[in-house]
Amino acid sequence: MNFLLHNPTRLHFGKGKLENLKNEIKNGTKVLLTYGSGNIKKFGLYDEVLKILKELNCEVHELSGIEPNPKLSSVRKGVEICKNNNIDLILAVGGGSVIDASKAISIGAKSNCDVWDLIIKKETPSDRVPLGAVLTLSATGTEMNPNSVITNEETKQKVGFAHPPYTFPVFSILDPTNTFTVPRNQTVNGIVDTISHLLEQYFNKSENGELVDRFCESSISYMMEIAPKLLENLEDYSLREAMMYTSFVALNGSLSVCGGDWSTHGIEHSVSGIFDISHGEGLAIITPHWMKYVARKNPSKVIKLGERVFKLKKEGISDIDFCDKVADSFKNFFKQIGVSTSLKECGINEESLEDLVENTFVLGDVIGEYVQLRRDDVREILKMSM
Amino acid sequence: MNFLLHNPTRLHFGKGKLENLKNEIKNGTKVLLTYGSGNIKKFGLYDEVLKILKELNCEVHELSGIEPNPKLSSVRKGVEICKNNNIDLILAVGGGSVIDASKAISIGAKSNCDVWDLIIKKETPSDRVPLGAVLTLSATGTEMNPNSVITNEETKQKVGFAHPPYTFPVFSILDPTNTFTVPRNQTVNGIVDTISHLLEQYFNKSENGELVDRFCESSISYMMEIAPKLLENLEDYSLREAMMYTSFVALNGSLSVCGGDWSTHGIEHSVSGIFDISHGEGLAIITPHWMKYVARKNPSKVIKLGERVFKLKKEGISDIDFCDKVADSFKNFFKQIGVSTSLKECGINEESLEDLVENTFVLGDVIGEYVQLRRDDVREILKMSM
Repeated sequence: MNFLLHNPTRLHFGKGKLENLKNEIKNGTKVLLTYGSGNIKKFGLYDEVLKILKELNCEVHELSGIEPNPKLSSVRKGVEICKNNNIDLILAVGGGSVIDASKAISIGAKSNCDVWDLIIKKETPSDRVPLGAVLTLSATGTEMNPNSVITNEETKQKVGFAHPPYTFPVFSILDPTNTFTVPRNQTVNGIVDTISHLLEQYFNKSENGELVDRFCESSISYMMEIAPKLLENLEDYSLREAMMYTSFVALNGSLSVCGGDWSTHGIEHSVSGIFDISHGEGLAIITPHWMKYVARKNPSKVIKLGERVFKLKKEGISDIDFCDKVADSFKNFFKQIGVSTSLKECGINEESLEDLVENTFVLGDVIGEYVQLRRDDVREILKMSM
Repeated sequence: MNFLLHNPTRLHFGKGKLENLKNEIKNGTKVLLTYGSGNIKKFGLYDEVLKILKELNCEVHELSGIEPNPKLSSVRKGVEICKNNNIDLILAVGGGSVIDASKAISIGAKSNCDVWDLIIKKETPSDRVPLGAVLTLSATGTEMNPNSVITNEETKQKVGFAHPPYTFPVFSILDPTNTFTVPRNQTVNGIVDTISHLLEQYFNKSENGELVDRFCESSISYMMEIAPKLLENLEDYSLREAMMYTSFVALNGSLSVCGGDWSTHGIEHSVSGIFDISHGEGLAIITPHWMKYVARKNPSKVIKLGERVFKLKKEGISDIDFCDKVADSFKNFFKQIGVSTSLKECGINEESLEDLVENTFVLGDVIGEYVQLRRDDVREILKMSM
């Protein structure tokens, strides 16, 4: 274990916590309010936020229409608004995409270089416009971490990055009520994303991460237990609360102290960079095949996972057969909650294979930590996922 | 669930991390170096720290001799040194007591009121001298939380307090190697303290804290598994590492989002405020009796704990008998690792009963959250603990 653990975000969690904006934002602040397609207007959150900002005599600028896989062009627009208006605070009201785009805007606005160079880490930020968030969708954990994923729509590159401490939100407001209107399919994507984050961190190479392993196992089991109940009752406060809590715990740094694999995310970013499928869907398709593939090189943790999370009995079963059972258990779970289970179902076929392989290796020739993967490995996993 | 989660401490964890002092401390800083009985001189850490501080051209002042249950008089000395010398940074090198005392010094040094008034929360701090820590004993988690416990030796009051964000260390350096020389009995106390912190948070009143419960159960089980191995081999890096990790995770805020009971700590502080027994010893004695007592009012979580942590079978056993078994399992564990199991073994008898009861209620007439306790309840628990 060798790590820096540092997470400066102030996370306000609970019903009615929007009121805390009044403590977090100073009178007269110049705010850039960022949001997506305008759902926040439908369910009243937009009005509530604006009311508070007006009470605080804020000068409010807006950037709306941030896409589900947020695009570089939106980021560029936001950077321009910040620079032209000396914005003091970016207030992101939305899900992972809105917050991710706002993180890129926040560092781009205080830098002289092209913001894409900050995203691909060619340049390093040295300042940022502070970012606050009001979360409306539980999934990525971006509300309490420094991570962001931006798609360059010209080059089809989807790149994840983090520039701590600059890309941590200064504060985030998490009221489960604000996730009641998230539709079933997006709730499913959030469930898959949360489980995937936990799996990525579970598959680290540390030899002394037993407690982290148990936390991950607990969280995966718990998410799988509450998921079907939540999907039956999308406006159940306790279940929305449980999901909101689990999804930020899954990726706020506390479970990544032993490292993590992140291959599945790498491959998925390639897919949803080129094709406009949802991140959750892509993860659900690739995860079981990634698991089967790496188990043939290193079965140990797949076995542990199967025994602990699915309570499968290893006795009398070969490693490979057992690991396939574990992978299939995930596949069945994803199918049960209604996600596609093959790329072809999403209209993606072998014709795109080489493009998908190449696009996985935008930033290097190797991905993965638990098992390192190169182009041939990823090609195989993608073929299996077709 | 209704909480603010915020922990700004930068925690540097791993072998050789002392080097990071060079990034954390600016050239020419005026440092107050605080430590205890001087053990850090014996095993070389004092020299290593001083070497780095000299390289950084720091002006170094010292406060040594901070007691195991840190006393108000030591805090007052530290405050005076800070005020007289315009100290920029307090660097605590030691265990929980040294860091706790340094927290009180850090807020006292920037306040005009008596530091005791800040401790008993009669006054509120509005600034502090930044505090950094180099940890030498895994136990209290103070290295990554805002908590501190100070004893007023004149009034025999032992008071726990927290003034977030001022009493968070700005940074802490955790190198498991620096805990190799912690003797067996102090290692045992750290184990008990860590388990007690987890139990205090497990016994909250939240109805939706299932994931937090599982994290606590995992951590308690893990601590009980590694404890006997560590006590057999005090210089095993992996085991010291595991304990160092578990003890700060046990009390860095992530497991307190549902609240906590803290009665056991309240009663123990009364005992070790009057008698100079170690905090860990006091906790080990009181915990099983507190558990038996509250189980008679609310057995639910004691039952859950027994089934999950000790894998006891509830079937066919009455609630009370089952809970007594759970409490005895803890008692046996504490006995097995060599802690006293009654107050009389420590020379404390019925004569002190009323003083101990009164001293538990320094700051109010009720303690506890899982089960609220008043003087009569605490008297009963103390009697059982004799």
